[in-house]
Amino acid sequence: MSLYDYLLTQDGIITKESLLYPFEERGLQFGDGVYEVIRIYQGTFDLLEEHIDRLYRSAEAIRLEVPFAKDALIASLHQLSEKNDVQTDAKLYLQITRGSAPREHSFPDVPSNFYAYMEPSERPVSPLQQGVRAVLADDIRWDLCYIKSLNLLPNILAKQTAKEKGAFEAILHKNGTVTEGSSSNVFIIKDKILFTHPAAENILHGCVRSRVLALALKAGLQVKETAFTTDQLLQADEVFITSTTSEIMPVIEIEGSLIGNGKPGSDTRTLQLAYEKESGIQTTAFV
Amino acid sequence: MSLYDYLLTQDGIITKESLLYPFEERGLQFGDGVYEVIRIYQGTFDLLEEHIDRLYRSAEAIRLEVPFAKDALIASLHQLSEKNDVQTDAKLYLQITRGSAPREHSFPDVPSNFYAYMEPSERPVSPLQQGVRAVLADDIRWDLCYIKSLNLLPNILAKQTAKEKGAFEAILHKNGTVTEGSSSNVFIIKDKILFTHPAAENILHGCVRSRVLALALKAGLQVKETAFTTDQLLQADEVFITSTTSEIMPVIEIEGSLIGNGKPGSDTRTLQLAYEKESGIQTTAFV
Repeated sequence: MSLYDYLLTQDGIITKESLLYPFEERGLQFGDGVYEVIRIYQGTFDLLEEHIDRLYRSAEAIRLEVPFAKDALIASLHQLSEKNDVQTDAKLYLQITRGSAPREHSFPDVPSNFYAYMEPSERPVSPLQQGVRAVLADDIRWDLCYIKSLNLLPNILAKQTAKEKGAFEAILHKNGTVTEGSSSNVFIIKDKILFTHPAAENILHGCVRSRVLALALKAGLQVKETAFTTDQLLQADEVFITSTTSEIMPVIEIEGSLIGNGKPGSDTRTLQLAYEKESGIQTTAFV
Repeated sequence: MSLYDYLLTQDGIITKESLLYPFEERGLQFGDGVYEVIRIYQGTFDLLEEHIDRLYRSAEAIRLEVPFAKDALIASLHQLSEKNDVQTDAKLYLQITRGSAPREHSFPDVPSNFYAYMEPSERPVSPLQQGVRAVLADDIRWDLCYIKSLNLLPNILAKQTAKEKGAFEAILHKNGTVTEGSSSNVFIIKDKILFTHPAAENILHGCVRSRVLALALKAGLQVKETAFTTDQLLQADEVFITSTTSEIMPVIEIEGSLIGNGKPGSDTRTLQLAYEKESGIQTTAFV
């Protein structure tokens, strides 16, 4: 048995290897479901209620029933954490699909399938300190990316292309307007003003994104939820992306072009430190 | 054991109930795969090579390796058909995903997962004779719908809405331009000219669609692969949709508005009969 070998399903806690799905499952054949990834710092969930709230919003948007009341789900996740004796930095993945049923587009009359599991996951300390490279890619996704659904093929393809070009993330744009990253939200700072795409239907409303906006206001930055272009991105003083596992990740180079002086900017550093404080996590040696 | 209880995987023919997937599978967590549905008339595959060719094109478009050479796959499908002793009208479903691997967006270094199975499937004779109702819905899908991928959430949602409104299909449009149905291609006939959306990247290049275009030319209709608007759709002399299981399905009412006199049109009938002849299937009593 490896670390964190227990998994939660709608029927209770079981071992990971005992969860098996038939070949006619709505996630497997249609991507008909929603998911969340939740950070765990030293055994403690971060932004748990925010993620669970979003899970219910995503499920409602695709008319999918969550097989738990919100409080019961949160209690079960804590039980899973105890059962796994989670002490390290880790992440929790959970998904709900429309169940196992003979393949037909319209909704089947069967119970939803749910599972949640944990994996050890260290903070990406070196990239957080050094910054990362990004590439640009067309945003070819569907119109409702605020729904955190299992239809992730365009995200995968963009991420793979980024990886092959030696980059950490693909920053997506629609006709030159930056929307978000393949698995992150994107922020720029220009003349002490923080810009990010508004929380419209075509981007994910990131839990880290919301926290960063609040921290930026506290730090005295002006905040504008206004879309920006790829040109403005490349000309920004500072760029960073946010996600549950990447936190506030400085972007120092995009498509071979340096951002600022090619080092993480001072306002990004301020936000990183404020983020660590807010999450109650140990400060990395930002220098 | 029910009818057609055997299934083909990359490891050979097994029973349906013995194929089980772990919870970390690329189809299940990302919709990272492609599929086909192939018609079987009285035990014989219809348009088999066309579907298999498209499968390989879809797989290539998402950089997914098919774990068989084309000839070997076709031979294996025939073996599966023999093993199941398929005699009835039926359909074959097959899908390939990027395999079972720990969840991470970028491509894993594991073998693809493949399966193919059959189910009895009668021709929808009564709807083919009477025609069906359709509704309109926004086309909110991604840009690359020519790839027959497992990312089908918007298609499902549109189909379910159609069903709840008592309709057979949702006809999708982007800002008033008709693209295709949630699981079909859409054709109109106006003044003896057949129109359908061009085989661009944003619609599926239907195998039945191609056959119908050829049959229409043979039948003396003028054919234009030109997009049309929802207004032109509603004002058409005849409307039909095509798919592997629906064949050439007359649409007699859209959003409560009758098409022509509210009965399947004569050119649609001509094409239906030509289609049956071409597929070598028994003629339904079209009257």
